[in-house]
Order: sequence, then structure tokens, then C-alpha cells
Amino acid sequence: MEKSAGENADKMHSLNFAVRDYECDLQGVVNNAVYMNYLEHARHEFLKSRGVDFAEVTRQGIHLIVIRAELDYKASLTSSDDFRVNTRFDQESKLKIVFYQDIIRQIDQTLMLSAKITATAINEKGRPFVPEDILALLAD
Amino acid sequence: MEKSAGENADKMHSLNFAVRDYECDLQGVVNNAVYMNYLEHARHEFLKSRGVDFAEVTRQGIHLIVIRAELDYKASLTSSDDFRVNTRFDQESKLKIVFYQDIIRQIDQTLMLSAKITATAINEKGRPFVPEDILALLAD
Amino acid sequence: MEKSAGENADKMHSLNFAVRDYECDLQGVVNNAVYMNYLEHARHEFLKSRGVDFAEVTRQGIHLIVIRAELDYKASLTSSDDFRVNTRFDQESKLKIVFYQDIIRQIDQTLMLSAKITATAINEKGRPFVPEDILALLAD
Amino acid sequence: MEKSAGENADKMHSLNFAVRDYECDLQGVVNNAVYMNYLEHARHEFLKSRGVDFAEVTRQGIHLIVIRAELDYKASLTSSDDFRVNTRFDQESKLKIVFYQDIIRQIDQTLMLSAKITATAINEKGRPFVPEDILALLAD
Repeated sequence: MEKSAGENADKMHSLNFAVRDYECDLQGVVNNAVYMNYLEHARHEFLKSRGVDFAEVTRQGIHLIVIRAELDYKASLTSSDDFRVNTRFDQESKLKIVFYQDIIRQIDQTLMLSAKITATAINEKGRPFVPEDILALLAD
Repeated sequence: MEKSAGENADKMHSLNFAVRDYECDLQGVVNNAVYMNYLEHARHEFLKSRGVDFAEVTRQGIHLIVIRAELDYKASLTSSDDFRVNTRFDQESKLKIVFYQDIIRQIDQTLMLSAKITATAINEKGRPFVPEDILALLAD
Repeated sequence: MEKSAGENADKMHSLNFAVRDYECDLQGVVNNAVYMNYLEHARHEFLKSRGVDFAEVTRQGIHLIVIRAELDYKASLTSSDDFRVNTRFDQESKLKIVFYQDIIRQIDQTLMLSAKITATAINEKGRPFVPEDILALLAD
Repeated sequence: MEKSAGENADKMHSLNFAVRDYECDLQGVVNNAVYMNYLEHARHEFLKSRGVDFAEVTRQGIHLIVIRAELDYKASLTSSDDFRVNTRFDQESKLKIVFYQDIIRQIDQTLMLSAKITATAINEKGRPFVPEDILALLAD
């Protein structure tokens, strides 16, 4: 098992999943795009664990958006696999937050995917704007 | 080729598609749920062709919703298949509209799926409400 | 709460889910097609609980396929909702099996969707063929 | 409009799309993961235009796989947008091929997303193996 950056961090959030068959494609493994779904859901659960509700924030006119995604696919999840997504948060600048996310297969602790997701927030006028209270909650 | 109800109707709308590989699952054919995507997209294009923009109507607080879906799966679409969705509209009652939809494979005109989708609209209070002007446009 | 057919059956299988934000569409609720994903995943977990592994059966050249789906949408799941899918199995004929499935929101036990999914199996030649051992396991 | 790397390359492949409403999420724009679907479909159509059929190659036991994806999200596609995906191919090493892909909104030629997708192939034993004939076709 490869050592993953987030494994020991104290800000680490972990969420368990099981592969669903409809997520597999004609290669018989989880389709590449579906990992983005897993990562998004894990980030939103991470946010919720810090008191930030994505749907509620959206209704308030603050749009949390991804500006860059880097994904390293290391091995393929397949039907019936149990896995977890580890999410670690970092504030890169006043307007940039970064999520480091690893997908680990449970049965043998193999690192399946490692990702760096850079995000920001924009207000209703489309201007970059990360509310202080959200940053405070995330950095908690 | 089976004869399909909507084929000759003058209210018939037709939309061309091609299967995308990510829509296929581990059986190597288009996943059952994806047909619902095709049907929805065809209905929204039908609506647009009558002057009803789904996203715009949603922003105005009118939610067009499906209340019942009946799908008969007759044969499986697979990678590289070209097909069309035929959509025919019927007003069943003051509050119920029905879409009859067929999916036809282009290469041999085979009927792959036949569906009856019953819909209504609700306003922001969740009360059934199908605006007269929308009905007028659809019945055009 | 509406009373649902499967609630007391002894063959009932139940699976817990939580809505993921990417499953919601521009109406702010779970997209209609996504319920088909939930239902499929619940059926496959039901099969697995009876010793029938969908991916494994597929590799053996037996394709379990849906031939008809009837879905009654009663209320809309939305962001953060917890729910369960109840699945009950019935053998309708030698070649037809039926799944009755209900989606119940946890917080208030509201029936959100009720479905009847008719399935069969075909062998590698595309001929209907439901293996005896699979039927025996399902009827267990 | 930003200048994009692939725009003038002679190896450039271009594919037209229209946003489908079910691809939009509760922010009212195309969900981040869906861009991966667009990019995959465009790559497979690029392959097909060079005589490489993804599903057929998969059946032969050659698995074309993504090992790294880098996506820069620049602006959000939304309901009714027409756009194209430009795909350009580069061979980075004997075992690595790279796709540079841009998503351009048609109405104003805005660059919405820019991606670099690194891929390889593995044979049935999971060993890296990019068949010479595939490379020859792609480099054509």
C-alpha cells in the first residue's frame, strides 16, 4: 500500500462507500467520471461535518466551485468493492481552498485514486468571494 | 419492426441520439436508468420546440414533474448505436399531461423501448397547477 | 404515511441510502432517472443477500434484464435526505420475476416512490432462460 | 476568448454537444463530473475516427485506461448551451498517450474547460501494453 498524504492529518475526514453496479462501465470497472461523484459527495459530507451545508449555501447565493481537478488513477474499483474516501482540507490563499482526497479500497487498504481539488466561491455576481464564516468553519 | 403508437401522429417530435460508451454498464449495454435520461432530454426538447423552456419555467417557480413512468424494454441499445426518440403529447385531464415516447434504433428501425410518462405541474406551494399558457403551447 | 405493500412481507429486503448532491438536478430535487439507480442497486443487494452475485452471473453469460418498469413518483427526495429502499420478490411465471420496491424517507416514513419491476433472464443466445438454481435462491 | 493549445493543430478532432437538463445540478449548471463524460465521449469518437473502436478493443482484452486527469474549469455550461469538445492527441512515451481537450461554448467561443488526460493500455494480465497498430492509427 502506498502512503497517502492525508492519512495521519488531524483534519482528515473519512467516508465509507460501496461500489454500485450501475457505476461500472463496459470495461467492467467503475467509470472514470464516477470517481468525481464520489469525491464531490465526500467533500460535501466533509463540509457538512464542519457545519457548512452545500445546498443551503447555494440557496444563499454563494456558489462553491471547483476551478481545478487533478486525479491520479492508480487502480480500478469494481463491482462489490467497499472503499473509503479520505478528505483533507487546506487553505491555499484568501480565495483558494484545496481538498486532498484519497480513495482507499477497504479489503487490502490499496490506494486506488489520489486527487487534489482546488475550489473557490463566487457570489451572485460571479465575483470570487469566500465568506469569512465559511473559512472559519472549514479551518476549525 | 413493431408498429408504434406515435409513429404517424401529427404532434410527433423526433430527436436523434448516439449511445455514449459511459452510458453502458457491465452487461455491455445501455443501463436501464439511462433510458430515463434520453426520454427526459427528448421531452425537454419537445417542450422547447413548443416554446416552453424547462429551466426558465423552473426559475419562474413552476415545477413540471413526472408522477408516473411506465417503460417497456424491448431490446438493448449498445455502444455506437444511433437511435431516435419519438415523443407524442396528450392532455389526459386538466392536471395531467401524458407523453408517449418510443426509442427506435436507426440501423434497422427496431423499437427498443416504449414509454408512457404521466406528468403534472406544481407551483411553489406544491399545489398542482398547470398554467393555461403552457397547455396552450403544448397542444399547439 | 401511506401503507406500502411490501412493508410486512417476510421476503422483504431493506437497504439504507442518503441522497448525494450530484443526484439532484436544476429543480433542486433528485432527478427522476436516479431513482432507477437506487432501485437497481437495491435489487442487486437483495440478490446478493440471497447468494446471487449480479456481476458474477453476468460473467457466466446469464443476463438478468428488466423488461418492464412502472414507477409511481409520490414525493421528491432532496439534498441530505436519508431513505431506504424496500424490495420484495415474487415469481410471476416460469420466465418472469417481479420486484416490488418502495422508497421511504426516514425522517417521517413518507412513501416517496413505489415501483414494480418485471425482469427475466436471457442466455448468451438471447433466449429467455431463468436458471433453476437462481430461482431457488431467490424464492428462499 | 482565451487561446487554446489545440485550436490550430492538424490532428485536432472536434465534436458538437448540447447540454441536457439532467446533467445540471442544484447549482443550476452542468455538474463537474459530467465534463468527464463529455471528454470521454469525445475521446472515444476521436478514436473511432482513427479506426479504433473502444468497445471492440475492450472485447479483445486491451483496456485503454486513464492514469491521470487534469481539468481546469474556467466557466460553467448551463441548460441549453451548445458546445464542442476539441481533442488533440500526443504520444508522450512508448506507454503513455496524452489527450489535450478543450470545451468551447458555441455562442461566444468561450473556453469553458481545458483538460489534459494521460492514458495507457493494459492487457488482460494488467500489464502496460499499447499495441503498435493502435499507436499507428492514432498517430496517423
